[in-house]
Amino acid sequence: MGKIKIDNNAFVYPMPMTLVGAVVDGKVNFMAVGWVSRVNFKPPLIAVSLGPHYTNKGIEENKTFSVNIPGIDLIEKTDYCGLVSGAKTDKSGIFTVFYGDLKSAPLIRECPVCLACKLHETVKLPTNSLFIGEIVEAFADENDMTDGKPDIKKINPFTLTMPDNNYWEVGKHTGKAWNLGKKFKM
Amino acid sequence: MGKIKIDNNAFVYPMPMTLVGAVVDGKVNFMAVGWVSRVNFKPPLIAVSLGPHYTNKGIEENKTFSVNIPGIDLIEKTDYCGLVSGAKTDKSGIFTVFYGDLKSAPLIRECPVCLACKLHETVKLPTNSLFIGEIVEAFADENDMTDGKPDIKKINPFTLTMPDNNYWEVGKHTGKAWNLGKKFKM
Repeated sequence: MGKIKIDNNAFVYPMPMTLVGAVVDGKVNFMAVGWVSRVNFKPPLIAVSLGPHYTNKGIEENKTFSVNIPGIDLIEKTDYCGLVSGAKTDKSGIFTVFYGDLKSAPLIRECPVCLACKLHETVKLPTNSLFIGEIVEAFADENDMTDGKPDIKKINPFTLTMPDNNYWEVGKHTGKAWNLGKKFKM
Repeated sequence: MGKIKIDNNAFVYPMPMTLVGAVVDGKVNFMAVGWVSRVNFKPPLIAVSLGPHYTNKGIEENKTFSVNIPGIDLIEKTDYCGLVSGAKTDKSGIFTVFYGDLKSAPLIRECPVCLACKLHETVKLPTNSLFIGEIVEAFADENDMTDGKPDIKKINPFTLTMPDNNYWEVGKHTGKAWNLGKKFKM
Protein backbone atom coordinates (compact mmCIF):
# COMPACT_ATOMS: atom_id res chain seq x y z
CA MET A 1 0.00 0.00 0.00
CA GLY A 2 1.89 3.03 -1.29
CA LYS A 3 1.02 6.11 0.71
CA ILE A 4 1.20 9.56 -0.80
CA LYS A 5 0.78 12.95 0.83
CA ILE A 6 -2.50 14.66 0.06
CA ASP A 7 -3.83 18.15 0.83
CA ASN A 8 -4.06 18.55 4.61
CA ASN A 9 -7.53 20.06 4.13
CA ALA A 10 -8.62 16.46 4.74
CA PHE A 11 -11.76 14.80 6.04
CA VAL A 12 -13.30 11.72 7.61
CA TYR A 13 -15.20 9.26 5.38
CA PRO A 14 -18.12 9.70 5.33
CA MET A 15 -19.73 12.60 7.21
CA PRO A 16 -23.34 12.51 8.41
CA MET A 17 -25.59 15.13 6.80
CA THR A 18 -27.80 17.13 9.12
CA LEU A 19 -29.97 20.22 9.11
CA VAL A 20 -29.15 22.62 11.93
CA GLY A 21 -32.07 24.83 12.93
CA ALA A 22 -32.21 28.10 14.79
CA VAL A 23 -34.45 31.11 15.14
CA VAL A 24 -32.67 34.14 13.71
CA ASP A 25 -34.20 37.60 14.05
CA GLY A 26 -37.47 35.95 14.97
CA LYS A 27 -37.49 33.74 11.89
CA VAL A 28 -36.90 30.00 11.58
CA ASN A 29 -33.76 29.10 9.62
CA PHE A 30 -32.06 25.85 8.63
CA MET A 31 -28.59 25.13 7.29
CA ALA A 32 -26.96 21.95 5.98
CA VAL A 33 -24.13 20.75 8.23
CA GLY A 34 -21.79 17.77 7.90
CA TRP A 35 -19.36 18.83 10.62
CA VAL A 36 -21.29 17.43 13.54
CA SER A 37 -20.56 14.87 16.24
CA ARG A 38 -21.52 13.71 19.70
CA VAL A 39 -18.85 15.02 22.06
CA ASN A 40 -19.92 14.04 25.57
CA PHE A 41 -21.58 11.00 27.08
CA LYS A 42 -23.28 12.45 30.19
CA PRO A 43 -25.05 14.79 29.74
CA PRO A 44 -25.46 14.04 26.03
CA LEU A 45 -23.65 16.85 24.22
CA ILE A 46 -23.44 17.31 20.46
CA ALA A 47 -21.21 19.77 18.61
CA VAL A 48 -21.81 21.52 15.30
CA SER A 49 -19.07 23.51 13.63
CA LEU A 50 -20.25 26.51 11.65
CA GLY A 51 -18.33 29.02 9.59
CA PRO A 52 -19.43 32.65 9.83
CA HIS A 53 -23.09 31.96 8.99
CA TYR A 54 -26.40 33.69 9.52
CA THR A 55 -27.48 30.80 11.80
CA ASN A 56 -24.76 31.63 14.34
CA LYS A 57 -26.50 34.83 15.37
CA GLY A 58 -29.65 32.92 16.31
CA ILE A 59 -27.75 30.32 18.32
CA GLU A 60 -25.82 33.03 20.15
CA GLU A 61 -28.96 35.03 20.93
CA ASN A 62 -31.30 32.24 21.98
CA LYS A 63 -28.74 29.74 23.30
CA THR A 64 -30.63 26.96 21.52
CA PHE A 65 -30.45 25.08 18.24
CA SER A 66 -31.63 21.84 16.69
CA VAL A 67 -29.97 19.02 14.78
CA ASN A 68 -32.27 17.17 12.37
CA ILE A 69 -31.43 14.05 10.35
CA PRO A 70 -32.99 14.19 6.89
CA GLY A 71 -33.84 11.10 4.87
CA ILE A 72 -32.90 10.82 1.19
CA ASP A 73 -36.37 12.09 0.23
CA LEU A 74 -35.19 15.47 1.55
CA ILE A 75 -31.83 15.50 -0.27
CA GLU A 76 -32.69 18.37 -2.65
CA LYS A 77 -34.17 20.52 0.10
CA THR A 78 -31.22 19.81 2.38
CA ASP A 79 -28.68 20.67 -0.30
CA TYR A 80 -30.66 23.83 -1.05
CA CYS A 81 -30.30 24.83 2.62
CA GLY A 82 -26.53 24.50 2.13
CA LEU A 83 -26.55 26.64 -1.01
CA VAL A 84 -28.46 29.72 0.08
CA SER A 85 -27.99 31.90 3.15
CA GLY A 86 -30.82 32.78 5.47
CA ALA A 87 -29.52 36.34 5.35
CA LYS A 88 -30.81 36.63 1.78
CA THR A 89 -33.45 33.91 1.47
CA ASP A 90 -36.32 33.10 3.82
CA LYS A 91 -36.00 29.36 4.43
CA SER A 92 -38.75 29.23 7.06
CA GLY A 93 -41.31 27.72 4.67
CA ILE A 94 -39.29 24.78 3.36
CA PHE A 95 -40.18 22.37 6.15
CA THR A 96 -43.02 21.86 8.61
CA VAL A 97 -41.69 23.03 11.97
CA PHE A 98 -42.60 21.79 15.43
CA TYR A 99 -41.20 22.47 18.89
CA GLY A 100 -40.50 20.56 22.05
CA ASP A 101 -39.88 22.35 25.33
CA LEU A 102 -37.26 24.66 23.78
CA LYS A 103 -39.31 27.27 21.95
CA SER A 104 -36.36 28.59 19.91
CA ALA A 105 -35.06 25.20 18.69
CA PRO A 106 -37.12 24.56 15.54
CA LEU A 107 -37.53 20.87 14.70
CA ILE A 108 -38.39 19.47 11.27
CA ARG A 109 -41.48 17.28 11.10
CA GLU A 110 -40.29 15.65 7.84
CA CYS A 111 -36.97 14.52 9.40
CA PRO A 112 -36.96 11.04 10.97
CA VAL A 113 -34.80 12.13 13.94
CA CYS A 114 -34.76 15.58 15.58
CA LEU A 115 -32.61 16.74 18.49
CA ALA A 116 -33.44 19.88 20.48
CA CYS A 117 -30.34 21.39 22.05
CA LYS A 118 -29.54 23.96 24.70
CA LEU A 119 -26.21 25.70 24.19
CA HIS A 120 -23.65 24.37 26.66
CA GLU A 121 -20.54 26.16 25.43
CA THR A 122 -19.18 27.89 22.33
CA VAL A 123 -15.57 27.24 21.34
CA LYS A 124 -14.23 29.98 19.08
CA LEU A 125 -11.83 28.50 16.55
CA PRO A 126 -9.83 30.43 13.92
CA THR A 127 -12.51 30.41 11.18
CA ASN A 128 -15.38 28.48 12.77
CA SER A 129 -17.55 28.51 15.86
CA LEU A 130 -18.02 25.16 17.54
CA PHE A 131 -21.43 25.20 19.18
CA ILE A 132 -21.68 22.49 21.81
CA GLY A 133 -25.26 21.80 22.83
CA GLU A 134 -26.94 19.55 25.35
CA ILE A 135 -29.54 17.31 23.76
CA VAL A 136 -32.49 18.21 25.97
CA GLU A 137 -35.10 16.31 23.97
CA ALA A 138 -34.87 13.86 21.10
CA PHE A 139 -37.72 12.89 18.78
CA ALA A 140 -38.04 10.15 16.20
CA ASP A 141 -40.68 9.04 13.79
CA GLU A 142 -42.57 6.06 15.15
CA ASN A 143 -42.34 4.36 11.74
CA ASP A 144 -38.55 4.69 11.69
CA MET A 145 -37.93 2.72 14.88
CA THR A 146 -37.12 -0.95 15.49
CA ASP A 147 -37.13 -2.36 19.02
CA GLY A 148 -37.55 1.14 20.45
CA LYS A 149 -34.48 2.58 18.71
CA PRO A 150 -34.11 4.62 15.53
CA ASP A 151 -33.35 2.23 12.64
CA ILE A 152 -30.92 3.61 10.07
CA LYS A 153 -32.41 1.57 7.22
CA LYS A 154 -35.82 3.14 7.91
CA ILE A 155 -34.36 6.62 8.46
CA ASN A 156 -32.57 6.21 5.12
CA PRO A 157 -30.16 9.12 5.65
CA PHE A 158 -27.38 10.18 3.33
CA THR A 159 -23.77 11.04 3.97
CA LEU A 160 -21.29 13.53 2.56
CA THR A 161 -17.73 13.26 1.30
CA MET A 162 -15.36 16.18 0.83
CA PRO A 163 -13.41 17.58 -0.97
CA ASP A 164 -15.10 15.69 -3.84
CA ASN A 165 -18.56 16.91 -2.67
CA ASN A 166 -20.67 13.82 -3.11
CA TYR A 167 -23.63 12.31 -1.30
CA TRP A 168 -23.89 8.58 -0.53
CA GLU A 169 -26.58 6.23 0.66
CA VAL A 170 -26.06 3.92 3.61
CA GLY A 171 -25.22 0.39 2.49
CA LYS A 172 -25.74 -3.01 4.00
CA HIS A 173 -25.30 -4.12 7.59
CA THR A 174 -21.83 -5.41 8.15
CA GLY A 175 -21.74 -6.51 11.78
CA LYS A 176 -22.35 -5.69 15.43
CA ALA A 177 -20.22 -3.00 17.02
CA TRP A 178 -18.28 -3.77 20.20
CA ASN A 179 -18.69 -7.42 19.35
CA LEU A 180 -17.04 -8.32 16.00
CA GLY A 181 -13.63 -7.71 17.54
CA LYS A 182 -14.06 -10.69 19.86
CA LYS A 183 -13.17 -12.84 16.85
CA PHE A 184 -9.77 -11.16 16.52
CA LYS A 185 -6.81 -12.85 18.12
CA MET A 186 -3.43 -11.19 18.01
CA MET B 1 -45.27 11.36 10.49
CA GLY B 2 -46.01 10.75 14.16
CA LYS B 3 -43.12 11.88 16.32
CA ILE B 4 -42.40 10.30 19.67
CA LYS B 5 -39.89 11.28 22.31
CA ILE B 6 -36.88 9.00 22.53
CA ASP B 7 -33.99 8.79 24.99
CA ASN B 8 -32.02 12.04 24.81
CA ASN B 9 -28.81 9.96 24.73
CA ALA B 10 -29.24 10.36 20.97
CA PHE B 11 -26.93 10.31 17.97
CA VAL B 12 -26.40 11.32 14.37
CA TYR B 13 -26.90 8.72 11.60
CA PRO B 14 -24.43 7.36 10.77
CA MET B 15 -21.08 8.08 12.45
CA PRO B 16 -17.75 7.58 10.67
CA MET B 17 -15.51 4.93 12.24
CA THR B 18 -11.91 5.88 12.82
CA LEU B 19 -8.85 4.64 14.66
CA VAL B 20 -7.24 7.30 16.82
CA GLY B 21 -3.54 6.71 17.42
CA ALA B 22 -1.20 8.03 20.08
CA VAL B 23 2.03 7.09 21.77
CA VAL B 24 1.33 6.31 25.42
CA ASP B 25 4.20 5.62 27.84
CA GLY B 26 6.47 5.19 24.84
CA LYS B 27 4.20 2.61 23.21
CA VAL B 28 1.95 2.94 20.15
CA ASN B 29 -1.76 2.62 20.92
CA PHE B 30 -4.95 2.78 18.85
CA MET B 31 -8.57 3.14 19.86
CA ALA B 32 -11.82 2.97 17.87
CA VAL B 33 -13.61 6.35 17.74
CA GLY B 34 -16.90 7.33 16.11
CA TRP B 35 -17.20 10.73 17.79
CA VAL B 36 -15.02 12.64 15.38
CA SER B 37 -15.56 15.61 13.06
CA ARG B 38 -13.82 18.40 11.21
CA VAL B 39 -14.35 21.55 13.25
CA ASN B 40 -12.42 24.32 11.49
CA PHE B 41 -11.80 25.22 7.89
CA LYS B 42 -8.46 27.11 8.08
CA PRO B 43 -6.25 25.74 9.47
CA PRO B 44 -7.84 22.30 9.06
CA LEU B 45 -8.83 21.24 12.57
CA ILE B 46 -10.40 17.92 13.51
CA ALA B 47 -11.89 17.01 16.89
CA VAL B 48 -12.08 13.61 18.59
CA SER B 49 -14.09 13.13 21.74
CA LEU B 50 -12.70 10.57 24.16
CA GLY B 51 -14.02 9.34 27.47
CA PRO B 52 -11.46 8.73 30.23
CA HIS B 53 -9.24 6.46 28.14
CA TYR B 54 -5.62 5.32 28.21
CA THR B 55 -5.06 7.15 24.89
CA ASN B 56 -5.76 10.56 26.48
CA LYS B 57 -2.54 10.41 28.49
CA GLY B 58 -0.48 10.06 25.32
CA ILE B 59 -2.25 12.93 23.57
CA GLU B 60 -1.81 15.15 26.61
CA GLU B 61 1.88 14.29 26.97
CA ASN B 62 2.97 14.47 23.34
CA LYS B 63 0.42 17.01 22.02
CA THR B 64 -0.04 14.84 18.94
CA PHE B 65 -2.43 12.15 17.73
CA SER B 66 -3.56 10.54 14.50
CA VAL B 67 -6.93 9.82 12.91
CA ASN B 68 -6.96 6.82 10.56
CA ILE B 69 -9.85 5.67 8.35
CA PRO B 70 -10.04 1.88 8.22
CA GLY B 71 -11.57 -0.02 5.32
CA ILE B 72 -14.02 -2.88 5.91
CA ASP B 73 -11.14 -5.36 5.66
CA LEU B 74 -10.04 -3.97 9.05
CA ILE B 75 -13.45 -4.15 10.74
CA GLU B 76 -12.54 -6.91 13.21
CA LYS B 77 -9.25 -5.29 14.18
CA THR B 78 -10.93 -1.89 14.54
CA ASP B 79 -13.70 -3.27 16.72
CA TYR B 80 -11.08 -5.10 18.79
CA CYS B 81 -9.36 -1.74 19.40
CA GLY B 82 -12.70 -0.52 20.79
CA LEU B 83 -13.10 -3.53 23.07
CA VAL B 84 -9.76 -3.67 24.86
CA SER B 85 -7.88 -0.92 26.66
CA GLY B 86 -4.25 -0.16 25.96
CA ALA B 87 -3.78 -0.01 29.73
CA LYS B 88 -4.16 -3.81 29.84
CA THR B 89 -3.40 -4.98 26.31
CA ASP B 90 -0.47 -4.06 24.10
CA LYS B 91 -2.10 -3.04 20.80
CA SER B 92 1.15 -1.86 19.20
CA GLY B 93 1.49 -4.98 17.03
CA ILE B 94 -1.96 -5.02 15.41
CA PHE B 95 -1.10 -2.66 12.54
CA THR B 96 1.98 -1.64 10.58
CA VAL B 97 2.89 1.82 11.79
CA PHE B 98 4.54 4.64 9.89
CA TYR B 99 5.22 8.27 10.69
CA GLY B 100 5.21 11.60 8.91
CA ASP B 101 6.88 14.64 10.41
CA LEU B 102 5.15 14.19 13.78
CA LYS B 103 7.10 11.43 15.45
CA SER B 104 4.48 10.75 18.13
CA ALA B 105 1.46 10.53 15.80
CA PRO B 106 1.47 6.87 14.72
CA LEU B 107 -0.18 6.27 11.33
CA ILE B 108 -1.58 2.96 10.12
CA ARG B 109 -0.16 1.66 6.85
CA GLU B 110 -3.22 -0.58 6.29
CA CYS B 111 -5.67 2.36 6.51
CA PRO B 112 -6.52 4.10 3.22
CA VAL B 113 -6.49 7.59 4.78
CA CYS B 114 -4.30 8.76 7.67
CA LEU B 115 -4.25 12.20 9.30
CA ALA B 116 -1.36 13.33 11.52
CA CYS B 117 -2.49 15.96 14.03
CA LYS B 118 -0.85 18.45 16.35
CA LEU B 119 -2.96 19.28 19.41
CA HIS B 120 -4.51 22.73 19.03
CA GLU B 121 -6.71 22.82 22.11
CA THR B 122 -8.36 20.48 24.61
CA VAL B 123 -11.92 21.21 25.69
CA LYS B 124 -12.78 19.52 28.99
CA LEU B 125 -16.40 18.45 28.99
CA PRO B 126 -18.26 16.78 31.89
CA THR B 127 -17.33 13.17 31.04
CA ASN B 128 -15.21 13.52 27.88
CA SER B 129 -12.15 15.32 26.61
CA LEU B 130 -12.53 16.93 23.21
CA PHE B 131 -9.12 16.92 21.59
CA ILE B 132 -8.96 19.41 18.75
CA GLY B 133 -5.99 18.83 16.47
CA GLU B 134 -4.57 20.56 13.45
CA ILE B 135 -4.17 18.20 10.51
CA VAL B 136 -0.49 18.81 9.80
CA GLU B 137 -0.11 16.05 7.23
CA ALA B 138 -2.58 13.80 5.43
CA PHE B 139 -1.76 10.57 3.63
CA ALA B 140 -3.79 8.38 1.33
CA ASP B 141 -3.24 5.17 -0.50
CA GLU B 142 -2.45 5.82 -4.13
CA ASN B 143 -4.84 3.03 -5.16
CA ASP B 144 -7.72 4.62 -3.24
CA MET B 145 -7.69 7.93 -5.11
CA THR B 146 -9.67 9.16 -8.11
CA ASP B 147 -8.76 12.44 -9.81
CA GLY B 148 -6.30 13.22 -7.01
CA LYS B 149 -8.83 12.87 -4.20
CA PRO B 150 -9.62 9.99 -1.84
CA ASP B 151 -12.50 7.96 -3.31
CA ILE B 152 -14.91 6.59 -0.74
CA LYS B 153 -15.85 3.58 -2.88
CA LYS B 154 -12.17 2.57 -3.01
CA ILE B 155 -11.56 3.38 0.67
CA ASN B 156 -14.60 1.20 1.48
CA PRO B 157 -15.01 2.46 5.04
CA PHE B 158 -17.75 1.49 7.45
CA THR B 159 -19.96 3.57 9.70
CA LEU B 160 -21.43 3.15 13.16
CA THR B 161 -24.92 3.60 14.60
CA MET B 162 -25.71 3.94 18.29
CA PRO B 163 -27.42 3.06 20.59
CA ASP B 164 -28.14 -0.08 18.50
CA ASN B 165 -24.39 -0.65 17.98
CA ASN B 166 -24.24 -1.67 14.35
CA TYR B 167 -21.77 -1.20 11.51
CA TRP B 168 -22.86 -0.29 7.99
CA GLU B 169 -21.24 -0.17 4.58
CA VAL B 170 -21.40 2.91 2.37
CA GLY B 171 -24.07 2.58 -0.29
CA LYS B 172 -24.48 4.00 -3.74
CA HIS B 173 -23.78 7.51 -4.96
CA THR B 174 -26.86 9.63 -4.69
CA GLY B 175 -25.84 13.02 -6.08
CA LYS B 176 -23.45 15.96 -6.02
CA ALA B 177 -23.27 18.08 -2.88
CA TRP B 178 -23.78 21.85 -3.12
CA ASN B 179 -25.42 21.23 -6.46
CA LEU B 180 -28.55 19.03 -6.16
CA GLY B 181 -30.32 21.85 -4.33
CA LYS B 182 -30.28 24.00 -7.46
CA LYS B 183 -33.23 21.89 -8.64
CA PHE B 184 -35.30 22.92 -5.65
CA LYS B 185 -37.69 25.82 -6.08
CA MET B 186 -39.69 27.05 -3.12
